[in-house]
Amino acid sequence: MRLDVGCELIYTVETPTPMLLMLRPRSGVGQWVAQERYEFEPLIPAMEYTDSYGNLCQRIVAPVGQMRIQTHAQVEVADTADTAPGAGFTPVAELPDDTLQFLLPSRYCPSDDPQLGELVQRIVQDVAPGYDQVAAICTWIHTKLEYRYGVSSVTTSALQTIEYGAGVCRDFAHVGITLSRTLSIPARMVVGYLYQLEPMDLHAWFEAYVDGRWYMFDATQAVPRGGRVSVAYGRDAADVALSTQFGQAQLDHLRVWVAQAESQA
Amino acid sequence: MRLDVGCELIYTVETPTPMLLMLRPRSGVGQWVAQERYEFEPLIPAMEYTDSYGNLCQRIVAPVGQMRIQTHAQVEVADTADTAPGAGFTPVAELPDDTLQFLLPSRYCPSDDPQLGELVQRIVQDVAPGYDQVAAICTWIHTKLEYRYGVSSVTTSALQTIEYGAGVCRDFAHVGITLSRTLSIPARMVVGYLYQLEPMDLHAWFEAYVDGRWYMFDATQAVPRGGRVSVAYGRDAADVALSTQFGQAQLDHLRVWVAQAESQA
Amino acid sequence: MRLDVGCELIYTVETPTPMLLMLRPRSGVGQWVAQERYEFEPLIPAMEYTDSYGNLCQRIVAPVGQMRIQTHAQVEVADTADTAPGAGFTPVAELPDDTLQFLLPSRYCPSDDPQLGELVQRIVQDVAPGYDQVAAICTWIHTKLEYRYGVSSVTTSALQTIEYGAGVCRDFAHVGITLSRTLSIPARMVVGYLYQLEPMDLHAWFEAYVDGRWYMFDATQAVPRGGRVSVAYGRDAADVALSTQFGQAQLDHLRVWVAQAESQA
Amino acid sequence: MRLDVGCELIYTVETPTPMLLMLRPRSGVGQWVAQERYEFEPLIPAMEYTDSYGNLCQRIVAPVGQMRIQTHAQVEVADTADTAPGAGFTPVAELPDDTLQFLLPSRYCPSDDPQLGELVQRIVQDVAPGYDQVAAICTWIHTKLEYRYGVSSVTTSALQTIEYGAGVCRDFAHVGITLSRTLSIPARMVVGYLYQLEPMDLHAWFEAYVDGRWYMFDATQAVPRGGRVSVAYGRDAADVALSTQFGQAQLDHLRVWVAQAESQA
Repeated sequence: MRLDVGCELIYTVETPTPMLLMLRPRSGVGQWVAQERYEFEPLIPAMEYTDSYGNLCQRIVAPVGQMRIQTHAQVEVADTADTAPGAGFTPVAELPDDTLQFLLPSRYCPSDDPQLGELVQRIVQDVAPGYDQVAAICTWIHTKLEYRYGVSSVTTSALQTIEYGAGVCRDFAHVGITLSRTLSIPARMVVGYLYQLEPMDLHAWFEAYVDGRWYMFDATQAVPRGGRVSVAYGRDAADVALSTQFGQAQLDHLRVWVAQAESQA
Repeated sequence: MRLDVGCELIYTVETPTPMLLMLRPRSGVGQWVAQERYEFEPLIPAMEYTDSYGNLCQRIVAPVGQMRIQTHAQVEVADTADTAPGAGFTPVAELPDDTLQFLLPSRYCPSDDPQLGELVQRIVQDVAPGYDQVAAICTWIHTKLEYRYGVSSVTTSALQTIEYGAGVCRDFAHVGITLSRTLSIPARMVVGYLYQLEPMDLHAWFEAYVDGRWYMFDATQAVPRGGRVSVAYGRDAADVALSTQFGQAQLDHLRVWVAQAESQA
Repeated sequence: MRLDVGCELIYTVETPTPMLLMLRPRSGVGQWVAQERYEFEPLIPAMEYTDSYGNLCQRIVAPVGQMRIQTHAQVEVADTADTAPGAGFTPVAELPDDTLQFLLPSRYCPSDDPQLGELVQRIVQDVAPGYDQVAAICTWIHTKLEYRYGVSSVTTSALQTIEYGAGVCRDFAHVGITLSRTLSIPARMVVGYLYQLEPMDLHAWFEAYVDGRWYMFDATQAVPRGGRVSVAYGRDAADVALSTQFGQAQLDHLRVWVAQAESQA
Repeated sequence: MRLDVGCELIYTVETPTPMLLMLRPRSGVGQWVAQERYEFEPLIPAMEYTDSYGNLCQRIVAPVGQMRIQTHAQVEVADTADTAPGAGFTPVAELPDDTLQFLLPSRYCPSDDPQLGELVQRIVQDVAPGYDQVAAICTWIHTKLEYRYGVSSVTTSALQTIEYGAGVCRDFAHVGITLSRTLSIPARMVVGYLYQLEPMDLHAWFEAYVDGRWYMFDATQAVPRGGRVSVAYGRDAADVALSTQFGQAQLDHLRVWVAQAESQA
């Protein structure tokens, strides 16, 4: 299917403020960016580089006053999520080199915390190693944690979310990543757009590496859905902030949209 | 200035034919891709990866029959070329690691050929090391070589172009790169779009590393002009073919356009 | 000076256990590995790859029974630490792309924690931005935190170390990194060897990016010393574990040595 | 088997001369560097970086006078060559992204030359696509080209070697690479050490990507042998020069040795 996605951000700053943005989706496996638009108003110099995860990152200095950022893309993506119940665990010794970093603990996914072992063992009891373990983790998150705004903040870790018993998509992804890693399954964060998300917003989910490839998991949903545009990948939310500001920048306005578009080629 | 650039290619193939394309400009230093469009007709799966030079490369398998590729971009670029007469030679010992590969000989730029030494010494005689040497090389190419179609082919090297005394933009760039490298000045190929090129086509030029940064040089012109959109960088044309086909694919149609656009943000 | 450094590790495992090791120093700026030895007993297959920070990482599967790992290197390094009191802050907008990741919060360096702001402002009050701020942070750590074993564990974060008021070299580095990042100064962890460390062990310190380059800081010492061999770089200890085991591997023995050697070439 | 390999180079220079060296083998798949030594006499500052192929490259400025470079390594490698008669052709559409660059023509491997098509078709007539095609190319080289010193120089291309009917290991590798690429089989140059080479010297061979992995081929031998230590990989000899000098540096002495060593761990 072809999705028409985008977001508009309006910031006000009082002194010139450096910012990093990760708002440009890339074409990749299962995702083709057919059309795109990325504009600043007022028109300012912007630079772009690729980070160590392959994400396109934009650098700007927000000028004094109000600045509007508008991104827009038409992207061909799969209608349905690619699932693989029963797909086996990839032994650590057989993991590709570049997946190993996704086994390590990270800022919001402290998978090295010793108190997680018992929990994860309870969740995956009697579950076959691999895909089904990650699916069991998602089911546990979906049924045991409440999706609720206001419980967590941008500094909330997976441990805290488990303790609070509630969180939002970002927190659910952090819990899924953390518990997967304790089972020696590489797991990474994805931020992007999801078709028919309610209420519409930017979204976060995760991917786990089983049976020789990455699979998408989304613990916010009972059944994983397609219609996703990935914008950035990382070890956790620390790596994939859609916007990082070095100074005071007030976000006055954020609007996100995802709609189905006609394939036009 | 904002440029509206693009190209349309129509291929006919008789069996499914793998192709590599390098048709998507990237935002970078001095170049901001504000809008973009990249469509295949019929709609086919396409993948994208980043090569070792940082270029975005698209992989497709052209389906049997006729296929149309259309790319289109609006890009903010500098109006004028950034020149630096007198800028000094960067000693090899001070070159950044990633520039060193652009000192090596390559397919169409056999800078290790011993017969080049005398020629380049004659060209840069009494010229200060650095920017001015490269400028002198460009002047030599521009005045001594004839810009003429039909003399060279896609396998023509810089040595052959010097021998023939004629070539097109790609050949001129190869000669400029080759002679710069013999002076231990890193030089790399650029392909892209140039505003007001006559006749309109895709264009090739080169960059040389002097005084601590890359500068643009274009031996097809008496005076270097701005209004350029870079699409791909490499050691020579072998690395930056806009299209590489593995099998028989007949190019029925190629149209290229570059126009000035309104900055719209 | 030339240092003769090395370590010996003996592990016992009961089932074949995948391990990642980071025990091979690389030649780089200011560090030349003139001789090296890296042996496993029994002899087992080992693979090596380079991670996203440029570290050499070894992958093995520890066989059942006892395994001895012995590494040894003779390395040319600087006698004295390179210090630069007064060196200025590099504005975020001028930081090289690859330093930006070292501004982000990480597992043990939660620099996004809001309670740190007041502390760091108190520490760097009246201190010129840049090198002197990081030096002030080191002095604060050195004088306010107690160097004591047994307070922290491998999962202790910089926040916890500040709270406990004590820790070891790794913890001191985490605090230094965390506080530097809150000032928008990129900071990264280094693990390696230090000449005349008492008691001898592997060591951890950090580097901060000011005035256009990385400088070494070591909060465990009143005055920064030279005689250092860097083995691995990362965002914090999560990235630079000298050994990561996926399963039960008991470390029976660890011996580390650093001695001055004759330059022999 | 464990090999004890090394080389000694003595240069004389009259002015300080920048040099690039590629003399340090890396541990990798099927190759473990257990011991190593890399010394300069007189002792000079040396830097090391990793190039885009993953090779370790050393940068020095040779001082006025005589300079001795001595490298030495003990490396665990396979006794026998890994062969796979019948292994199939990997379709271009299934090649990993990072193998695609090894399909492109390069300085000494002008695989885009139209006159090669007929030759390669004659060589691989009735041969199954994949491994056997590359083996047939090696057999053709081994039987049709004469191994002879003095015919070729460091600027000789594969086309010239075919024309001359003779060359050395480097030339044979270039011919093998070039002809493989014309069949859309990725092929890359390897330089390193070979046990029991007669006369002893540094050696060059190539690898071709078939059936989902790289295989070693060596057209200088009737039957491919093991006992190889790889030092550098590249598109052709332009990328893997063991030494590149920017100025006049006279090589007074070169000694190479490869011997079997006791595994000592």
